[in-house]
Amino acid sequence: MIMSQLVPNMSTTPVKGKENTRSLLIETGIDIMLEKGFNNTGLSEVLGACKVPKGSFYYYFQSKEDFGLQIINTFDEKYVLELDRVLGDKSLSAVERLTSYINESIAKAEQRKCSRGCLIANLSQEMADQNEVFRNRLKEIIEKRRSAIALVMQEGMSTGEISADLNAQELAEFFLSAFEGAILRAKVKKSTESLHVFKKMMFDKLFKYRQDR
Amino acid sequence: MIMSQLVPNMSTTPVKGKENTRSLLIETGIDIMLEKGFNNTGLSEVLGACKVPKGSFYYYFQSKEDFGLQIINTFDEKYVLELDRVLGDKSLSAVERLTSYINESIAKAEQRKCSRGCLIANLSQEMADQNEVFRNRLKEIIEKRRSAIALVMQEGMSTGEISADLNAQELAEFFLSAFEGAILRAKVKKSTESLHVFKKMMFDKLFKYRQDR
Repeated sequence: MIMSQLVPNMSTTPVKGKENTRSLLIETGIDIMLEKGFNNTGLSEVLGACKVPKGSFYYYFQSKEDFGLQIINTFDEKYVLELDRVLGDKSLSAVERLTSYINESIAKAEQRKCSRGCLIANLSQEMADQNEVFRNRLKEIIEKRRSAIALVMQEGMSTGEISADLNAQELAEFFLSAFEGAILRAKVKKSTESLHVFKKMMFDKLFKYRQDR
Repeated sequence: MIMSQLVPNMSTTPVKGKENTRSLLIETGIDIMLEKGFNNTGLSEVLGACKVPKGSFYYYFQSKEDFGLQIINTFDEKYVLELDRVLGDKSLSAVERLTSYINESIAKAEQRKCSRGCLIANLSQEMADQNEVFRNRLKEIIEKRRSAIALVMQEGMSTGEISADLNAQELAEFFLSAFEGAILRAKVKKSTESLHVFKKMMFDKLFKYRQDR
């Protein structure tokens, strides 16, 4: 009997299969962590949902922390692709692109009945004081999103769609703060009112602010 | 031997002592839950920190859920007193009172190096999808705060300090969303920049918005 028959999926498993199992664990982890957070998610629950034997976990990940970081990275990679698609659509003006971004987010919140929220914000709240490795990674991600939003705002300011009396970096920081807070309030109220109020205040009011001259 | 000697602190404990133990458990619970959240806080940790024997917990609380709700209620009662003190100071104008509220919050965040955040927001994020009793209580609390802020904003609009081209209820919702989000971002970045940007955008820009006429 050759080794590959004694130890199933060892040498005969194609790389694709291994990659699929890893992806399945991460996708399932994202789903469960969005609901329960990092600390409250049991590895046995993730493995059970994936029908992956318990012993296999450490083949794919060094530790639960490593699993959490890979989850954050995968979630972020997908988010960046989405963000690039929406914010990079040059057939639309800067403010139209920001509007698309918010409209798509509101539509997703409606679909899931305002539950779960944003994984990055949820883990930020839970882990920022508990784990410096998580905190630094989460900080990088939120700063990267801020820069992406600020760039579009800068464009909107140069074309006059957004008041040039505002500072793009500060406006982007405020935009993301306010939107994250609105997602949290929508989650508690189980109503998208907070998200629609965000949109109205930001796009219809603040973007049109004019300094007294 | 009389009963009170067999069971120490049973019939001889003055009500004040019982109340003190209950308060101590709640205050310690607030402290630990601010750091770890509800699910991740062990009752044994709280009891150990208070030097209260394990068996006593159910004398004071029906369950961990009941303990969590009493923690939320106690935190809210204190917060309401603080809010009433700051927002009710009629020696100041409406916007001056809102400024005091934010300045005091920023000073507290600085003191604790942007850690912990707001217990109500933290538990909202953690528990809104997990427990309807918690969610309903948290929703009542955030709506009550919104009404208190809206009332002051309405006053600011009537005196011309805040643009009358805004809606006080919507502005209050947006104000609290944006502040909660800024507290969360400050916690990840370990910097009060988000809070100062919130203040500038809200007070110096949005409050001064003027509709084109």
